[in-house]
Amino acid sequence: MEPISSLCTPALVVDLDIVKRNAQRMIERFQKMGVQLRPHMKTHKTLECADIMTAESRRCIVVSTLAEASFYAEHGFDDILYAYCLPFDKVERCAALSEKLDLFQVLLDHPDALDQLKKRPLTNGRLWHIWLKLDCGNGRAGVLHSEPGALQLAQAIAGTEGVELTGVYAHCGNTYSCKGAEQIQAVAQETTNFVLDFMEKLRAVGITCKSSIGSTPSCSHPVKDMSKLDEVHPGNYVFYDVQQSTIGSCCLDDVAVRVLTRVIGHCPHRNQLLIDCGWSGISLDGAGKLPTGYAVIEGHPNLKLLSMTQEHGRVEPISGSLDYSKYPLGSLLTLIPYHSCATTMMHPVYHVHSGGHLLGKWTPTRGW
Amino acid sequence: MEPISSLCTPALVVDLDIVKRNAQRMIERFQKMGVQLRPHMKTHKTLECADIMTAESRRCIVVSTLAEASFYAEHGFDDILYAYCLPFDKVERCAALSEKLDLFQVLLDHPDALDQLKKRPLTNGRLWHIWLKLDCGNGRAGVLHSEPGALQLAQAIAGTEGVELTGVYAHCGNTYSCKGAEQIQAVAQETTNFVLDFMEKLRAVGITCKSSIGSTPSCSHPVKDMSKLDEVHPGNYVFYDVQQSTIGSCCLDDVAVRVLTRVIGHCPHRNQLLIDCGWSGISLDGAGKLPTGYAVIEGHPNLKLLSMTQEHGRVEPISGSLDYSKYPLGSLLTLIPYHSCATTMMHPVYHVHSGGHLLGKWTPTRGW
Repeated sequence: MEPISSLCTPALVVDLDIVKRNAQRMIERFQKMGVQLRPHMKTHKTLECADIMTAESRRCIVVSTLAEASFYAEHGFDDILYAYCLPFDKVERCAALSEKLDLFQVLLDHPDALDQLKKRPLTNGRLWHIWLKLDCGNGRAGVLHSEPGALQLAQAIAGTEGVELTGVYAHCGNTYSCKGAEQIQAVAQETTNFVLDFMEKLRAVGITCKSSIGSTPSCSHPVKDMSKLDEVHPGNYVFYDVQQSTIGSCCLDDVAVRVLTRVIGHCPHRNQLLIDCGWSGISLDGAGKLPTGYAVIEGHPNLKLLSMTQEHGRVEPISGSLDYSKYPLGSLLTLIPYHSCATTMMHPVYHVHSGGHLLGKWTPTRGW
Repeated sequence: MEPISSLCTPALVVDLDIVKRNAQRMIERFQKMGVQLRPHMKTHKTLECADIMTAESRRCIVVSTLAEASFYAEHGFDDILYAYCLPFDKVERCAALSEKLDLFQVLLDHPDALDQLKKRPLTNGRLWHIWLKLDCGNGRAGVLHSEPGALQLAQAIAGTEGVELTGVYAHCGNTYSCKGAEQIQAVAQETTNFVLDFMEKLRAVGITCKSSIGSTPSCSHPVKDMSKLDEVHPGNYVFYDVQQSTIGSCCLDDVAVRVLTRVIGHCPHRNQLLIDCGWSGISLDGAGKLPTGYAVIEGHPNLKLLSMTQEHGRVEPISGSLDYSKYPLGSLLTLIPYHSCATTMMHPVYHVHSGGHLLGKWTPTRGW
């Protein structure tokens, strides 16, 4: 088996042992709590990693794009939740998946989206399986949990012919501004409370359905009350990243991905190195967030990835002068990405290894 | 022909008429100046656009990655300059291209890179064709034009068996901090002077070779002395973007690319819209640079693309309250990208149109 150092750079490498450990921990954590884990595919978008996250069942996943849904459906996956507020241009493609799979599920947060589904009844007695998206403080998609409109929309779904209210879904992305388990758990508790309160309101009007919350921070440090939910839907945890380590979801040893890069320039007049990883190899995510710049340079805590253009990264010491003899042209550096979801998006292939020995390649799906 | 509004979003659309006009203007501009145009492929990385930029000759191009070089070589292109400081892990691949093509050219800025080439002599009496990269104030790659080491390295190349000093290459990326033609031309003049001075020094020691400078701003507003150069190598101009319009390289009407997106959420409690374009559809390039956020929203000067996550964009008015009746769910918005090189990188396919009618798809190459 070839060592990862034989790869041309920049290259995204995935540590299979860490991936399996991260996946297994999440599986066991929620098995013990009696909650169904529905892993999110958006971070990696590969079949191989999906198999690991679903313990080879190829069932019960969540996706962020319809391209992912189609890709997994074509490869034998089922029970797929397309957790994205129903895009009106994709209703027909959603209908086709609903009519093909045993269980394809959509999500919405607006009565107009329900109208779209009513206009396209499914054939063969199939029902549209609908999750209602609640905003429990994240401030992105979803009807506000506290608004009367939320309950009204749930009732409208439940009362509509040809559709089924499958569940209530909240993404606690507001955990991303937390530092440490205590803050994460406060957000997880609040989101859980809001969802459980809403489920209570539903029951009071005679509606029962599933409940689900998710985010990698909250599912890495779940609160007890999350055992009262039906499902959780984290995704990033399978790779983790520097951002998750600063939030407190994991430690740096849990991060399964790296970008390998090589020194391609010495600039003593600027006290800088150039590396062959620009934003096309790691993304611009994380700007201004870390003292070490756009990434952590493994084993070199005094180095900072200061700036990038398309194919170049500028590296300088946090303090002092660079000793260029330590970084000859062609020498390898290892970047731990700030945001693995953004970094993987830049790579058409991931190189998978165990202990630094290459095992093969994973090819993600792309597009929408 | 289907209208572009029939596309599922987000979608990158390319206006073929503008592409042809931008390409033709650059061709004519440098034909008149008697300077060889060597267009850069890094912005689009497609065969179709390369054909337009080379007036179907499939000769005389410059690339930023070896993947691009191989892609074009496999499709009948030749006279390819891989304008990236020789990466030591890719010497063998470069040798293979040098032995296969009529003219494959590499670039370097360090004696150690020359040593790498000496260690791998080409077969069949072929020579390594080497451009020396000069830094004329851009502050990225290249040996500083003013350093004695620059001339010494040129002499070392010229005096080495099995290699040829093909030219001197400078990228005036420092034009990107300019505003307006006058500032651009000041940088173009300075870079041209530094390169021509260096060519003079070379002649004084008996060395003759080509000279080339480039960047879209400088080649959109060339100074007269650029006619004394042998080549220019701009690339972004075929698409242009909002950044180029703020620099002064072009006007917004010259921008050939858009990202189509649709409204997928109404958030009246936050005075925001959600759109189906996140950073995975347009990139994070341009953060903090425009009053309208990460893009210009065409025809809606009061809207700002405030923030993005992977698949969501948050849009809010620059002032006042959103009138949601103007932006029903499912309605189309058109984003003009801040940096087209970064935006195209996020798309596995580009949808090409003329006057809003779809003509076909271009598929870029990716990787390294």
